[in-house]
Amino acid sequence: MNENIGNVISKAREIYQTYVYEEKEAIDVTVEDITSSIEHTNLKATATSEDIKTLCNEAKKHKFRSVCIHPSYIPIAKDFLGESLVKVVTVIGFPLGMNTSLIKSKETENAISMGADEIDMVINQGKLKDGAYDNVFFDIHKVVKTAGSIPVKVIIEACNLSNEEKIVACLIAEAAGAKFVKTSTGFAKHGATLEDVALMRYTVSNSIKVKAAGGIRDLETAKKMIANGADLLGTSSGVKILQGLSVDGTY
Amino acid sequence: MNENIGNVISKAREIYQTYVYEEKEAIDVTVEDITSSIEHTNLKATATSEDIKTLCNEAKKHKFRSVCIHPSYIPIAKDFLGESLVKVVTVIGFPLGMNTSLIKSKETENAISMGADEIDMVINQGKLKDGAYDNVFFDIHKVVKTAGSIPVKVIIEACNLSNEEKIVACLIAEAAGAKFVKTSTGFAKHGATLEDVALMRYTVSNSIKVKAAGGIRDLETAKKMIANGADLLGTSSGVKILQGLSVDGTY
Repeated sequence: MNENIGNVISKAREIYQTYVYEEKEAIDVTVEDITSSIEHTNLKATATSEDIKTLCNEAKKHKFRSVCIHPSYIPIAKDFLGESLVKVVTVIGFPLGMNTSLIKSKETENAISMGADEIDMVINQGKLKDGAYDNVFFDIHKVVKTAGSIPVKVIIEACNLSNEEKIVACLIAEAAGAKFVKTSTGFAKHGATLEDVALMRYTVSNSIKVKAAGGIRDLETAKKMIANGADLLGTSSGVKILQGLSVDGTY
Repeated sequence: MNENIGNVISKAREIYQTYVYEEKEAIDVTVEDITSSIEHTNLKATATSEDIKTLCNEAKKHKFRSVCIHPSYIPIAKDFLGESLVKVVTVIGFPLGMNTSLIKSKETENAISMGADEIDMVINQGKLKDGAYDNVFFDIHKVVKTAGSIPVKVIIEACNLSNEEKIVACLIAEAAGAKFVKTSTGFAKHGATLEDVALMRYTVSNSIKVKAAGGIRDLETAKKMIANGADLLGTSSGVKILQGLSVDGTY
């Protein structure tokens, strides 16, 4: 067994036994807090190039952190975004995470060669549930190595996991060199919950960030996610969230 | 424009203008009709190796045509199936189809190197909706070329398409060298419908087979699918369908 895994297992047990969830109240946020946290997302299977153009234009206009799109749209997104500071985030092994580590690595290489600035990969949930932690670690580590200086987020698909599995998944992701852990793909039973965001925040060290994704459709939810530990918000409702902010008058 | 695409467009127009759906009555089927048509499927993101073992054992016991599983489970499925005649079918670009053609090709190569007997790939629906038919053709053709003698099924995800798009998708798949067209991934709004199976059967030539997948959970539905043009049934309910057959007494 990989020595990292031994540490993961003992640390996971400790967290599982001692952690208690307490919901933190929503905080007031500024326009900049919101725009710099939003990954403006269109991962629909039916997204057209026109949809991606709209997404990119909105992201530029509102100064969102990034667009999050499928690999086959990276070239046109780079083109639409031009010289703007909006990052291009793409997804690997998405949304099921059950392809091989070799292919996840090839996907990463291909995405970066087309200009991806960040990689959101899906964990192999089957192997996690099998307790094949070495495999789960290797799967992430291979992508991280391939990505080099490009940051990798690991999507744990929290809604499919027990709390113990969520903790283990986050600790393996950190040990394997991920820069972020991410709650959800948006394609499973449900997206981010406050409980999951808080647990993930508690589990990983301060050098790792947490991305809440899926089901974040209004300002109130966005604020709560941030208050409970989310650094980034993966959402297709960024424009609506900003509108709530202007209605809400909290900035 | 690829000359195949010109032919596809004129043929699609003709089919769209003249085709009329008429539901055919369910036919009686034998145990062998059913078992030889069933692709025994577990594509859950959370499938464990124990689940895959069960799937393989059921497929062997009931002499199903194949198991349909994620790429990362091909090695253990080959192992569990041993010398049996049950094929190993895997999925490529699954379930959204929005990765690049290069990666779909690499996935195919990787799957075949691990022992996959057939490849079920998902079409790029965004490019189809964009009318970028050359891209859709190229995407399939690249996988078909990589697969060589290994048959390729093209999943059109019918529930996301208009009838015109379904017809075009099937004709492009045939022109690009697919051996089967398949209705659904089982991960979108709904699975196979009789209307889609009949339309797809009508659209492709007799050298192409039709796989109905998703939502086929009992004998009655299985019979109707076959009567309306399905050659293969992608289902996780194969054992239940067979039980219906023994209760039903139609064999």
